Amino acid sequence: MSTVSLPALSRVAVCGGTHGNELSGVYLVRERLKKKQQQREGQESFSVTMVMGNPRAVQQCRRYTEADLNRCFTRATLNSPISDKTPYEIIRSQELNGLLGPKGSPKAMDLVCDLHNTTANMGLCFITFSDSDWISLHIYRHLQRELATIPVRYIHFDLPKNEAYSLESVGKHGFAMEIGPQPHGSVRSNVFVAMQEGIELMLEWIRLFNSGTHFEGGSVEVFTLVKNIDYPRDPETRSITAAIHPELQDRDFCLLHPGDPLFLSFSGETLRYKGKEPLYPFFVNECAYYETGIALSLASRRRVTIPSIQCNRDRLTMGTDV
Amino acid sequence: MSTVSLPALSRVAVCGGTHGNELSGVYLVRERLKKKQQQREGQESFSVTMVMGNPRAVQQCRRYTEADLNRCFTRATLNSPISDKTPYEIIRSQELNGLLGPKGSPKAMDLVCDLHNTTANMGLCFITFSDSDWISLHIYRHLQRELATIPVRYIHFDLPKNEAYSLESVGKHGFAMEIGPQPHGSVRSNVFVAMQEGIELMLEWIRLFNSGTHFEGGSVEVFTLVKNIDYPRDPETRSITAAIHPELQDRDFCLLHPGDPLFLSFSGETLRYKGKEPLYPFFVNECAYYETGIALSLASRRRVTIPSIQCNRDRLTMGTDV
Repeated sequence: MSTVSLPALSRVAVCGGTHGNELSGVYLVRERLKKKQQQREGQESFSVTMVMGNPRAVQQCRRYTEADLNRCFTRATLNSPISDKTPYEIIRSQELNGLLGPKGSPKAMDLVCDLHNTTANMGLCFITFSDSDWISLHIYRHLQRELATIPVRYIHFDLPKNEAYSLESVGKHGFAMEIGPQPHGSVRSNVFVAMQEGIELMLEWIRLFNSGTHFEGGSVEVFTLVKNIDYPRDPETRSITAAIHPELQDRDFCLLHPGDPLFLSFSGETLRYKGKEPLYPFFVNECAYYETGIALSLASRRRVTIPSIQCNRDRLTMGTDV
Repeated sequence: MSTVSLPALSRVAVCGGTHGNELSGVYLVRERLKKKQQQREGQESFSVTMVMGNPRAVQQCRRYTEADLNRCFTRATLNSPISDKTPYEIIRSQELNGLLGPKGSPKAMDLVCDLHNTTANMGLCFITFSDSDWISLHIYRHLQRELATIPVRYIHFDLPKNEAYSLESVGKHGFAMEIGPQPHGSVRSNVFVAMQEGIELMLEWIRLFNSGTHFEGGSVEVFTLVKNIDYPRDPETRSITAAIHPELQDRDFCLLHPGDPLFLSFSGETLRYKGKEPLYPFFVNECAYYETGIALSLASRRRVTIPSIQCNRDRLTMGTDV
């Protein structure tokens, strides 16, 4: 396979606090904004814009105030008219689209990385709507090779770009960087440090890429969402009647076979996985998904071939708003 | 030491959802209320009243709606006048005082057990305002001996009964049963099962006590709160500037020595414990205490001698409102 030539990444955005109670990203963004005030960064081949996604939710230490901001970046919502009754998060998504997009336009950020936490034991995950974004996949492989403290995986939500609903979809390239386990509303040093290292490795890769480094192709492991499974619920009250089984809890990305324990009901009964094929669980017992009806997600695993890539240096523009 | 004779425990209350996002207690109370509808319990020597402490906060899956309910049970607050502007939780504390108290009166419940969760790695803790409530201390020793899956400890907040602010202080005897780690807003099977087992062992002990069993005296380990330590904060914004150090995280009840790492700042600096004496940390990185300025609490440890006790069976009254 021949080398794919791609334009330099001259404008990069790192966002935190898109969910206001996922604190690693909140403190990472605050810390980097503080440092930036103290010292102008040296000569970089690209600008890095730090963004607090949902400052109102951050202030209240809640996921969102009126609507989940990270579901507001579909084309339809970004183009919807604003009235007095429009939820704050829809207004904010359109602001962010102005700052980092417009989505799908040549003016959009070259790369958007949106920082998230989960209560699930997922390590560090790239989450994207594409399995052919060579930039994201090469950065993923770089982190997977270099990050020693935490496993690194790539999750693909197979939706058309039009229906992509999350913040990073505003950039030309982009991914959510999801790290856990960490309870929402708290920060654990090991998770914070892993996020800092992940961001540093991403910036290092961009530096190498922009300077003309040739990155070899190869193949990488990708998990693709197959389906979500809800908790068993009381048919009348909709209250959950079981929790994730102790044998499944914290075992994200460990293959789940038909017949394996899935839930332990509050009355003590084990409920088993009735699917026909073994699949990989993730977002196991993610706290924020109780309200959306997801006890866990299931993925298939495959290898994706990625081409060698190199920056088309002719088109390199120096970043200006460092 | 001679045997202390105490009246039977004929009216017992078990409360959950006093903090609406601490879900083990919420689901335990729901489950037991459901069972009670299905079958009348057999002949017990006592009644068990199941109570959802803060149903409005439970519905919103938040700790509280307007004020922390579990700080509203001081005599002053319980006797404060109600107006249109009184926070919901103060109204609710007075309702609960009517149902389970009145605090300090002969009509109060004989025993109140209030169920809580923490994000800290604390195992199962009894938390009380007394180190001489022989009932609570004997129940504690029973759980410590019988509960195999999780460590059991006793924490004493050394405040006068008048200033005791939490729900269980409404009963003649009482304690909070605090179990973690579990992220708020989620339920982990192992924590739920430990809470169920803890409640069953407590009820078993009451059954034995009421039937006249003689419980030997002895000595038990008690942790007494010495002080709380806040996070380092930005002097202007009050935003925290460090997280619990990885070497301290999850090490509740492991002795902290002067000079041991306490925090890791977001810029990478280790901050050390500057106290003069070694103490036992607990509530390490409890999520709900970011807003109240507690990064961890520190306790001293000692042994408390408890007398032999036996029920004064003359006074035993059969429970009626099972």
